[in-house]
Amino acid sequence: MLIARSAVRLTHAQAMRRAIELAASPDVPLWPNPRVGCVLLSKRGTVIAEGYHRGAGTPHAEADALNQAGERARGAIAIVTLEPCNHTGRTGPCAQRLIDAGVSRVLYAQSDPNPIASGGAETLRAAGIEVESGLLAEESRAVNRVWSRATELQRPYVTWKFATTLDGRSAAADGTSRWISNAAARRDTHVRRAECDVIMVGTNTVAVDDPSLTVRDADDLPAAVQPLRVVVGERALPVHAKVFDDAAPTLVMATHDPAMVLEHLWRMEKRHVFLEGGPTLAAAFAAAGLIDEIVTYVAPMLLGAGRNAVADLGISTIADALRPTVVDIAIIESADEQPCVRLVMETS
Amino acid sequence: MLIARSAVRLTHAQAMRRAIELAASPDVPLWPNPRVGCVLLSKRGTVIAEGYHRGAGTPHAEADALNQAGERARGAIAIVTLEPCNHTGRTGPCAQRLIDAGVSRVLYAQSDPNPIASGGAETLRAAGIEVESGLLAEESRAVNRVWSRATELQRPYVTWKFATTLDGRSAAADGTSRWISNAAARRDTHVRRAECDVIMVGTNTVAVDDPSLTVRDADDLPAAVQPLRVVVGERALPVHAKVFDDAAPTLVMATHDPAMVLEHLWRMEKRHVFLEGGPTLAAAFAAAGLIDEIVTYVAPMLLGAGRNAVADLGISTIADALRPTVVDIAIIESADEQPCVRLVMETS
Ligand SMILES: NC(=O)c1ccc[n+]([C@@H]2O[C@H](COP(=O)([O-])OP(=O)(O)OC[C@H]3O[C@@H](n4cnc5c(N)ncnc54)[C@H](OP(=O)(O)O)[C@@H]3O)[C@@H](O)[C@H]2O)c1
Ligand SMILES: NC(=O)c1ccc[n+]([C@@H]2O[C@H](COP(=O)([O-])OP(=O)(O)OC[C@H]3O[C@@H](n4cnc5c(N)ncnc54)[C@H](OP(=O)(O)O)[C@@H]3O)[C@@H](O)[C@H]2O)c1
Repeated sequence: MLIARSAVRLTHAQAMRRAIELAASPDVPLWPNPRVGCVLLSKRGTVIAEGYHRGAGTPHAEADALNQAGERARGAIAIVTLEPCNHTGRTGPCAQRLIDAGVSRVLYAQSDPNPIASGGAETLRAAGIEVESGLLAEESRAVNRVWSRATELQRPYVTWKFATTLDGRSAAADGTSRWISNAAARRDTHVRRAECDVIMVGTNTVAVDDPSLTVRDADDLPAAVQPLRVVVGERALPVHAKVFDDAAPTLVMATHDPAMVLEHLWRMEKRHVFLEGGPTLAAAFAAAGLIDEIVTYVAPMLLGAGRNAVADLGISTIADALRPTVVDIAIIESADEQPCVRLVMETS
Repeated sequence: MLIARSAVRLTHAQAMRRAIELAASPDVPLWPNPRVGCVLLSKRGTVIAEGYHRGAGTPHAEADALNQAGERARGAIAIVTLEPCNHTGRTGPCAQRLIDAGVSRVLYAQSDPNPIASGGAETLRAAGIEVESGLLAEESRAVNRVWSRATELQRPYVTWKFATTLDGRSAAADGTSRWISNAAARRDTHVRRAECDVIMVGTNTVAVDDPSLTVRDADDLPAAVQPLRVVVGERALPVHAKVFDDAAPTLVMATHDPAMVLEHLWRMEKRHVFLEGGPTLAAAFAAAGLIDEIVTYVAPMLLGAGRNAVADLGISTIADALRPTVVDIAIIESADEQPCVRLVMETS
């Protein structure tokens, strides 16, 4: 996959595609950082070096490529998937690195989605470097869909997940709910948890279900990197609750204010919250307009009574219904079990 | 499609396939009758005549083929999709017609599903005719899936249809519900209504919604043949309700007993009830175990409150949930609208 193609001449679009491929190559999320790829081209169009970001504390994509190129970077064209950063974080600003390396031109795809622009492009231009942007911008943004939206909003992106019967129940009248969805849907949930940096529930879900809220693989073994577990609510929780075991860090936030929760998590550099309920906490986020994506597993099962999967949202007439945009519908087949339907929807 | 292939020699299986094709050829339902096809083969395997049933009061498939064959039927092999009938209804018994015509052998696919067997096969055997059954029996049964099940149960087959939001609501808190599903789903409902001979609702749906309960085409024009409209419940209904217009016949059944309703409709020779709600009447049928098929349109919409799409079914724990077998899941796309998910499930 990651073979330098130094003998071949690439067009700028081909080089950008390659940079996107490099950006997308890490198979784990890089929270709180975006995925970025970089290709250094000679004026003839041959690849001098390739780089990509491998996560917080490691070199940015541009630095990764420049480190390999050394003196060969002088006069080169830097093709980057995201506007080079201008600020000193864990590593130095990339704009300055590119200037110091003597590149002649910078082409980037996606502009920095931060509403208070970082000014990487300006810094480069001020140093006399030719700068162009927008080439394959959409494809580049797609690689960091959640990160981009979170950065625009300046708060973590919130994915609300719930399982429901065909008639909108999450548990029977006596509280029993194992299992509403099928094994494949539960597996799918772990895959989605792993893509987030926070798994969140309300205090009552901890009190009633005592869930682990960890990412486990198909053999039920815990993943090496675990999202932060966040429990929202004011009551005291049993100290022996599974969320307080050492499988992952856990934060209890004694508040009822969803905006404050997200503000705090943003400051903790969290970018993607997986909100797993219960209905009360999810409704509070929905009512506050703080849900970006909904993932629902619908099981072909009827209860006719019991706990509602979705709590009161303050909606009284059909015209005000929440109508998120459907982005995906899939049938989740499971051996020896009934299939479920998974819907993925976006609210913004 | 319906070309006699007199020059070609057919195996018995090929002739049965052709008979099934003939059976399925009418593009309208033949209620209360099944679809039946018949091929008369010479001993050499060439087609002497083909026949199929075109609806109540017209010749049965065997008679249709025999009428065309005349004297050529003598010594022929009759290949029929369903066991020849033995009773005199609107037309004479087919078993006797086959005997009188002098066929040498009868091969049929599906046995008469009536639990009190009609004895067509016995009558034929008693007359010295060689009889075999079971060839492509499943395929033949599929052509009359609903009719076969109704005949086995000796009551009309009941398809319950409902539309729901993702959170199990059929209307908002203020009663508004236009529209929960999309235009394509409503179109699909008309196609499904047309396959039935009864469209049924409870009195409250008439009182609240004043529906027409007719089959209309894509241009909103009424179909030539309309199912019987049945309203179940004891209250007096407004005389100007749309169900009492002359677009279709309507029967009001002043009872709360679903079994009695079906018994009466069976005696009226009805075979396929399309139960369109509301939730109260549907729950009564479900609780009585009188629902055979469920068709659900799930709309990607959340209300959080309002009327439940499915009423209390007397289920209190998850182990007792209704878990019908999913036979089909489809995404119903509609121009300029959100897609819906259609699930078709069987309970038996
Ligand atoms: N179907 C599914 O996918 C799914 C997923 C998760 C859970 N569940 C089920 O849901 C049930 C629990 O649901 P739930 O709704 O009672 O619990 P919940 O949403 O997990 O917790 C509700 C509690 O959160 C606290 N809270 C935090 N912010 C709040 C706010 N803005 N408004 C109101 N309360 C706030 C309150 O507790 P304090 O008094 O502590 O402040 C409240 O009582 C369990 O039975 C579980 O099985 C189902
Ligand atoms: N989402 C959908 O697909 C859909 C479809 C249809 C209707 N709806 C909505 O459902 C609402 C009406 O629902 P609903 O449940 O109130 O009305 P319903 O089921 O149409 O009618 C209920 C009435 O039927 C009579 N009834 C007959 N057999 C009964 C039995 N075994 N047990 C109890 N009652 C029996 C009773 O009236 P008597 O007093 O007259 O005996 C009862 O009040 C409307 O607002 C309509 O919009 C939704």
